[in-house]
Amino acid sequence: MSEVTSRPTLEAVAARAGVSRATVSRVVNGGEGVREPLVERVRRAVEELGYVPNQAARSLVTRRHDAVAVVIAEPETRVFADPFFALQLRGIGKELTAHDSQLVLLLTEGRDDHVRVGRYLAGGHVDGALVFSLHLDDPLPGLIHGAGVPTVFGGRPGWGDGVPDVVYVDSDNRGGARDAVRHLVGLGRTRIGHITGPLDQTSAVDRFQGFRDVMVDAGPRMVVEGDFTPAGGESAMRELLDRCPDLDAVFAANDLSASGALRALRERGRRVPDDVAVVGFDDMLPVAEQTDPPLTTIRQDIEEMGRLMARLLLGGLEPRGAGREATSAPSSVVLPTTLVRRASA
Amino acid sequence: MSEVTSRPTLEAVAARAGVSRATVSRVVNGGEGVREPLVERVRRAVEELGYVPNQAARSLVTRRHDAVAVVIAEPETRVFADPFFALQLRGIGKELTAHDSQLVLLLTEGRDDHVRVGRYLAGGHVDGALVFSLHLDDPLPGLIHGAGVPTVFGGRPGWGDGVPDVVYVDSDNRGGARDAVRHLVGLGRTRIGHITGPLDQTSAVDRFQGFRDVMVDAGPRMVVEGDFTPAGGESAMRELLDRCPDLDAVFAANDLSASGALRALRERGRRVPDDVAVVGFDDMLPVAEQTDPPLTTIRQDIEEMGRLMARLLLGGLEPRGAGREATSAPSSVVLPTTLVRRASA
Repeated sequence: MSEVTSRPTLEAVAARAGVSRATVSRVVNGGEGVREPLVERVRRAVEELGYVPNQAARSLVTRRHDAVAVVIAEPETRVFADPFFALQLRGIGKELTAHDSQLVLLLTEGRDDHVRVGRYLAGGHVDGALVFSLHLDDPLPGLIHGAGVPTVFGGRPGWGDGVPDVVYVDSDNRGGARDAVRHLVGLGRTRIGHITGPLDQTSAVDRFQGFRDVMVDAGPRMVVEGDFTPAGGESAMRELLDRCPDLDAVFAANDLSASGALRALRERGRRVPDDVAVVGFDDMLPVAEQTDPPLTTIRQDIEEMGRLMARLLLGGLEPRGAGREATSAPSSVVLPTTLVRRASA
Repeated sequence: MSEVTSRPTLEAVAARAGVSRATVSRVVNGGEGVREPLVERVRRAVEELGYVPNQAARSLVTRRHDAVAVVIAEPETRVFADPFFALQLRGIGKELTAHDSQLVLLLTEGRDDHVRVGRYLAGGHVDGALVFSLHLDDPLPGLIHGAGVPTVFGGRPGWGDGVPDVVYVDSDNRGGARDAVRHLVGLGRTRIGHITGPLDQTSAVDRFQGFRDVMVDAGPRMVVEGDFTPAGGESAMRELLDRCPDLDAVFAANDLSASGALRALRERGRRVPDDVAVVGFDDMLPVAEQTDPPLTTIRQDIEEMGRLMARLLLGGLEPRGAGREATSAPSSVVLPTTLVRRASA
């Protein structure tokens, strides 16, 4: 940004406060190593003159870019087709905007592009990265680690168990899945199937675990792997009905696959919930309200997850000192889920 | 990227070619100011050794970041709701990936954020910018000009008329609109209404001009401003029917607003096309095929527009010399449109 000449300069602040330019600069950018009386004098001069720090100069001192990268480890076609990502980006965008930090979305076509993403992250263009929809064996975590930028993950990364410096925001996927299946059991259902998400993602694995926690005796024929899409849910449902024609309930690992399952059930002449009860996961609107019948599901607050990811990252970037409480390193957050009852179960 | 030790170094190439490191570096990065016999020797050494330039070093010399920003001057909610943007991004992404350049999507909540976007563009993070969905009075073009990055616009910018160094990719909006309205006239329709797009965008203004080119005598009551969304098209259609109950055709400025118009017509008991014929613009799939009845529309190749934008930008960034033909400065491209007949008109 070019300075408008009428704007007060760093020099003017230094003169007014009776200190050096360097001291003003240090105070403006966090105040490390400046004695409190001087800090006070500079702050007063800044207020009196209405001084706004020049962004480029500030960046030189703080090494901040006021930009945060968002990396979604999915092809761009899925990013735009699944409202999950739009919701999470909305939460992230709101929080970043409130901190005048630019959301930089790095789109990829496929896994081959992740080397390039790592290069961009390492290139000094962003203050940190928010990464979600990681799959097992993805080279991205290693590349990000190599890039050395602070990172918060959306969803527990599969490789991060017990590693203390991996920070993530997740929902209680396993507990939510247990609630879904217990609800079906409470309705008197006994032959309960499960359509999983892609099992190279921890969210899908955790929901599958929750299903098994309740259905300890369910055989593998009651479980079909889906891919979190309506088409995947539809074909998984057909497969379940072929394997177990007298199935009386299904827990789908997300609402999009539940909507596909409902289509397959209608096609096969099964009434929902009379013949087969259906529970989803997400409470993704408008999807969950517009299915026929409307979907009973497990609610997770996707937008809030995005907001929290951004907040954790920005909090970790805050300079210490300057009168601020020394904050502890950010730690991961797991949000609770709730059952939302509609007509399908 | 860290160098793998077994990879041949710049020094090895220099030794093999019998030239200095600086000469190798200049040749590898475009060859400006190096005599042809030396260029040849270096090239041969590069080939023989299988030398791959180190990315960071290359960036220092070429000042290339191998990243291109995409700025969509719309709130992120619209970016994700309107398939137009996903299609254009797909075209851009394919072209950038083919050139190993990273797509950096800068999301904004609103116009207030555009100062921050300008700052990011000016900060040396990208080689150029692709900017679309500009509205009149948007501060973005000025900010981008100030940032000094090469830019290609999607859609003719309203302020760029006759300015030779503004490069854009657009469709023949006016000609396409004329074809739409002439088609309705050819069906014998005489009371033809028009639902415009937001008239602070040149695409909407140009389509409106095309409508007027054919309907020279149409009064202002036959035209209602929409906003390119289904909801906007629906309320504009109601307004048109209130003003002119015996209207027998409507040209909607895009397919999404045409889909809303079809809803309003059905609600008012008008048969399409018997009572009212409808033509849209875009040939956006699956929207145009899934309306009831399927939509007659003007096709523009949105993905191709994105691809061309990226290609023009990257072409303008290519270094001259080094045996390459000196390319002329890129110039704007206007793509033709075609009428696609389905059931609605």
